[in-house]
Amino acid sequence: MVKIGVIGYGYWGPNLVRNFFELDDCEVKIVVDKKQERLAILKKHYPSIQVTTDINYLLHDRDIDTVVIATPVSTHFSLAKEALEVGKNVLVEKPMTSSLDEALRLVEMAEKKGKVLMVDHTFVYKDAVRKIKKIIDSGEIGQLRYFDSTRTNLGLFQPDVNVLWDLAAHDVSILLFLVKEKPISIQASGVSHTKNKLENIAFVTLKYQSGMLAHFNVSWSSPVKIRLILIGGSKKMIVFNDVEPSEKVRIYDSGYKVRQNKDKSKFIVDYRLGDIQIPKTDLKEALSEMVKDFIDCVKTGKKPISDMYHGMEVVKILSLAQESLRKGEKPIYYK
Amino acid sequence: MVKIGVIGYGYWGPNLVRNFFELDDCEVKIVVDKKQERLAILKKHYPSIQVTTDINYLLHDRDIDTVVIATPVSTHFSLAKEALEVGKNVLVEKPMTSSLDEALRLVEMAEKKGKVLMVDHTFVYKDAVRKIKKIIDSGEIGQLRYFDSTRTNLGLFQPDVNVLWDLAAHDVSILLFLVKEKPISIQASGVSHTKNKLENIAFVTLKYQSGMLAHFNVSWSSPVKIRLILIGGSKKMIVFNDVEPSEKVRIYDSGYKVRQNKDKSKFIVDYRLGDIQIPKTDLKEALSEMVKDFIDCVKTGKKPISDMYHGMEVVKILSLAQESLRKGEKPIYYK
Amino acid sequence: MVKIGVIGYGYWGPNLVRNFFELDDCEVKIVVDKKQERLAILKKHYPSIQVTTDINYLLHDRDIDTVVIATPVSTHFSLAKEALEVGKNVLVEKPMTSSLDEALRLVEMAEKKGKVLMVDHTFVYKDAVRKIKKIIDSGEIGQLRYFDSTRTNLGLFQPDVNVLWDLAAHDVSILLFLVKEKPISIQASGVSHTKNKLENIAFVTLKYQSGMLAHFNVSWSSPVKIRLILIGGSKKMIVFNDVEPSEKVRIYDSGYKVRQNKDKSKFIVDYRLGDIQIPKTDLKEALSEMVKDFIDCVKTGKKPISDMYHGMEVVKILSLAQESLRKGEKPIYYK
Amino acid sequence: MVKIGVIGYGYWGPNLVRNFFELDDCEVKIVVDKKQERLAILKKHYPSIQVTTDINYLLHDRDIDTVVIATPVSTHFSLAKEALEVGKNVLVEKPMTSSLDEALRLVEMAEKKGKVLMVDHTFVYKDAVRKIKKIIDSGEIGQLRYFDSTRTNLGLFQPDVNVLWDLAAHDVSILLFLVKEKPISIQASGVSHTKNKLENIAFVTLKYQSGMLAHFNVSWSSPVKIRLILIGGSKKMIVFNDVEPSEKVRIYDSGYKVRQNKDKSKFIVDYRLGDIQIPKTDLKEALSEMVKDFIDCVKTGKKPISDMYHGMEVVKILSLAQESLRKGEKPIYYK
Repeated sequence: MVKIGVIGYGYWGPNLVRNFFELDDCEVKIVVDKKQERLAILKKHYPSIQVTTDINYLLHDRDIDTVVIATPVSTHFSLAKEALEVGKNVLVEKPMTSSLDEALRLVEMAEKKGKVLMVDHTFVYKDAVRKIKKIIDSGEIGQLRYFDSTRTNLGLFQPDVNVLWDLAAHDVSILLFLVKEKPISIQASGVSHTKNKLENIAFVTLKYQSGMLAHFNVSWSSPVKIRLILIGGSKKMIVFNDVEPSEKVRIYDSGYKVRQNKDKSKFIVDYRLGDIQIPKTDLKEALSEMVKDFIDCVKTGKKPISDMYHGMEVVKILSLAQESLRKGEKPIYYK
Repeated sequence: MVKIGVIGYGYWGPNLVRNFFELDDCEVKIVVDKKQERLAILKKHYPSIQVTTDINYLLHDRDIDTVVIATPVSTHFSLAKEALEVGKNVLVEKPMTSSLDEALRLVEMAEKKGKVLMVDHTFVYKDAVRKIKKIIDSGEIGQLRYFDSTRTNLGLFQPDVNVLWDLAAHDVSILLFLVKEKPISIQASGVSHTKNKLENIAFVTLKYQSGMLAHFNVSWSSPVKIRLILIGGSKKMIVFNDVEPSEKVRIYDSGYKVRQNKDKSKFIVDYRLGDIQIPKTDLKEALSEMVKDFIDCVKTGKKPISDMYHGMEVVKILSLAQESLRKGEKPIYYK
Repeated sequence: MVKIGVIGYGYWGPNLVRNFFELDDCEVKIVVDKKQERLAILKKHYPSIQVTTDINYLLHDRDIDTVVIATPVSTHFSLAKEALEVGKNVLVEKPMTSSLDEALRLVEMAEKKGKVLMVDHTFVYKDAVRKIKKIIDSGEIGQLRYFDSTRTNLGLFQPDVNVLWDLAAHDVSILLFLVKEKPISIQASGVSHTKNKLENIAFVTLKYQSGMLAHFNVSWSSPVKIRLILIGGSKKMIVFNDVEPSEKVRIYDSGYKVRQNKDKSKFIVDYRLGDIQIPKTDLKEALSEMVKDFIDCVKTGKKPISDMYHGMEVVKILSLAQESLRKGEKPIYYK
Repeated sequence: MVKIGVIGYGYWGPNLVRNFFELDDCEVKIVVDKKQERLAILKKHYPSIQVTTDINYLLHDRDIDTVVIATPVSTHFSLAKEALEVGKNVLVEKPMTSSLDEALRLVEMAEKKGKVLMVDHTFVYKDAVRKIKKIIDSGEIGQLRYFDSTRTNLGLFQPDVNVLWDLAAHDVSILLFLVKEKPISIQASGVSHTKNKLENIAFVTLKYQSGMLAHFNVSWSSPVKIRLILIGGSKKMIVFNDVEPSEKVRIYDSGYKVRQNKDKSKFIVDYRLGDIQIPKTDLKEALSEMVKDFIDCVKTGKKPISDMYHGMEVVKILSLAQESLRKGEKPIYYK
């Protein structure tokens, strides 16, 4: 029985507690939050869970072997560090940290301590994303040509990170899960419409040796919620539309061929498409798969799907995009 | 009665001829094409129109006062120049020319000769685009924050220009029609999957002093046809979805407000929307409006909606984007 | 504090318990179910609630003043009757009973005992349906011409009632909520593809003195889930599409006018539409509104929105549709 | 070379002339219309075609072997009869006639004269409908369970026929093309909101010995244009959505199975779906296929896809539906 302590019961914490609560082989023992009213809400629904505003109470409970961190990004590093230091396994919300250096230090500490460190990149536990990985790995769509994601909605702006670290973190995580090749350069543009200068709209372009291109369009400022990823291969194309209630993944039978008229003039053919396939995807909550994988890894020592190296690589890509923003939006080389 | 000669009866030429043919105050007298089989098709449908493979025959017909050019981009400059030189009015397909210098020379010649020079930027004649202009000009959506266009489809690649000069030309034309402010910088990224090194996927980002941002995502390599422009203001947002058969324009009642939780943590509200309005838009062919405007201008000397300065500015923006591609995808300053 | 006992913790019971649990002015004291495994699941989530397989234990608990019945339709009458007899208020799942006679007897008993009897017609608590009622009542759409509902999905067939009593019950409930006029006749057609002869596809047509027409198309046999109600008036039309995640209600500015060409021949104009409005609708769970209304009525004696007369009228319409099915699908007069 | 005379250049006539004009093996020689302004429009586009307001001029032109009738339904019989009498082949707009008796008389005359009589049921020439026929005939979807069509839009009401003879004519034609079994009964309901008492909304239900059910919901009074046919089989289901610009046909991998919970209670599973397939369908105009088939039949004597027996059967079904309307909306037996 894995004994869990959760830090943070704000926006995402309740989802984590609810999912861990459903599992048979773990127990949520303590939840920490700074706000008494949050703890009161928790207590009503889960009278068996202890609550406290004191993080140290949780960290020094010897019964607890595992800590779940669901707090703002800027606190991830210090909380995860403290938890690893006292020998706990750690699950931390995405992104892992706000700098590559911090991520590196956590990874080193987890390696040294022999503990599980995992980042909650929920998307890679989505059945739709797993189906897409299988299709790409099977070679069915041919050589990858582009990964083009649009992720926009209307929401409160985060006070400590820009839209890259919030929304693009998902895209980077999915991209890294699907594509093994490393980029050669990363370029980002963005704009802030707030006084704190944190970008609320941003675009990121990653270029690859193979000719592949990745592009993210992320925004907190669109009343239209878009969650659309187009993945083009030399043979077929995949569309992942996550706002579709059930038909999330589509495979277009004809990718594109480079063709030319006999007389070398252009001829536009809008609907030159073959069959389209919509594979069935399981619609159950990805979060429940994530918590299962995490508990499994804690119990058995196996490597999680969303492991700490994946989490660190996400931070690296985001950091390079951030660097591009800072350096006049020029492309930054990946090294 | 305006007497017209048309050069080029390939992909777009038939549409132009059909629309000019419907007007009462003009006559399509001669059509030129290099291919006899194209001329035979024309002759079947329009037995009254003269056909020839000889451009000079058309240029030296004194009866013809107006020349319509529907040939590949690389030929626009020399053909338009010749036509202006012999004193004809000129309508040329978009984009006007393949360089800013050429555009400038044509404009100067048209000014000197006192002739109409106009570029067929059909989109600015679309009722949907005109409705959007009215809404923006009324101040209803507030201060402009972003213009975000995605324009993808599957088609034959053009042999003489990249996807910017083909697809982004539309976006630049619409952007210039809607937004008076000039950009301060233009950055472009792209990739070519063909041997001729012409980009088939490209992204362009324009930054503005006011904090506005424009972004184009254009691709010839997507089986999914997307024609989506999001225009965000400080009060409301407009969505122009041109693949919708009838509901092309939507106005979202709540633009975005910068809000923060009391405790400065984030709170995502996906559906924080007010009412949505879908104004009626006239679905008649924009091309018929364009040809009417052109003939009107030839007859009365009035300034067309899509005039030569607009056409030249489109070429300027595309040239700067091209320069960014050439210079390692760095932002280029607009001067 | 209203003390509640719930009978049935199968498909719908957990939703009811969850919603009552959230309220401050009521307490779910006992839950009854025949199956121990269902009670075990409940116990895990709500350790404070007593569980039992014995209905009498609940009925004879003097502390409990209110009983919630979430069992198969065929058991509604006897359970509600017993509960009313021992002086409890009753909330029963829709439809109230499986015959008009039974409904009448329950209503009489509730009147005599002075207790609240209410049917869980959740739809009339949906914000979208309430908005539609306001629009109709305002006269904005003019005189009602038709109410046309399609409600199909793929699901397990119910063992004790046909698709009318399951799916059409929703449509009848919404229709009665929106339209005051009584029908003059009811006609139904249907087909059963199972051995028990219970219809899994059915159509119902109601005719009205005013010229209004109502039509329901209900099916358990369609992989495509459709939840579409078209409400036409002499001036405007409302579309209620309940599978849309957020844009559930649309108002079409032009209803239809009877027009004729000058020469009395027909001219089809598919897109003769004015503006479309999509009013904002609150997306919170209708069930939470329903349980609040119920508890309010129990506490204050006010009349619920979905009261027992409404519930009884639903049963009456369904019974007449059933009679039409039985009598060779002929129209049956409403008396 | 088939020489054609066309009667009627109103709404549909121009489409027929345009398509016949494109064919190489026929010539549109004469077009008749009562209105000079219609003939002037034709003359501008087709200067080679003779025009007249005198039907007899056309009928007595010996050079013409084939007559195309695109006039109101009430005139079909007399015009087709006259044309057959003078030995012409006849293509007549749908529906063939306004009564079964008239249809029978035309068919007998065509048989006696040995001439081609064909009805323009354009839908059966649609690639989407042909694909659906192939799928059904292959047995892939199993035994047919239902055919459920909704066909609504906003348009001018026809002055001489109700909505059944206008819109449901399409559904009957498609149904007869796809399903060989004859119905056992036909029931119709409808309402008229005009003084001429012609129904503008109607529902038709056909029942079959095999347990199949067909249902049409047709309306001229809906601002929302719906063209949706659901065809359910024992194994799979086909959805034909004709307002989709390109993805018109979908095949749902799981038809429905009759299942029951172990405890015989219901369990609703909305998304119990397998894969979905969207076969490519050719989007070219069905009318061009129809005119080709007609000209082929005139030239070679082969039987058209939409032959006169099919056209007559459409009239029979519509007449029985009309009879049901007249007889108090009772089911009428098909004999």
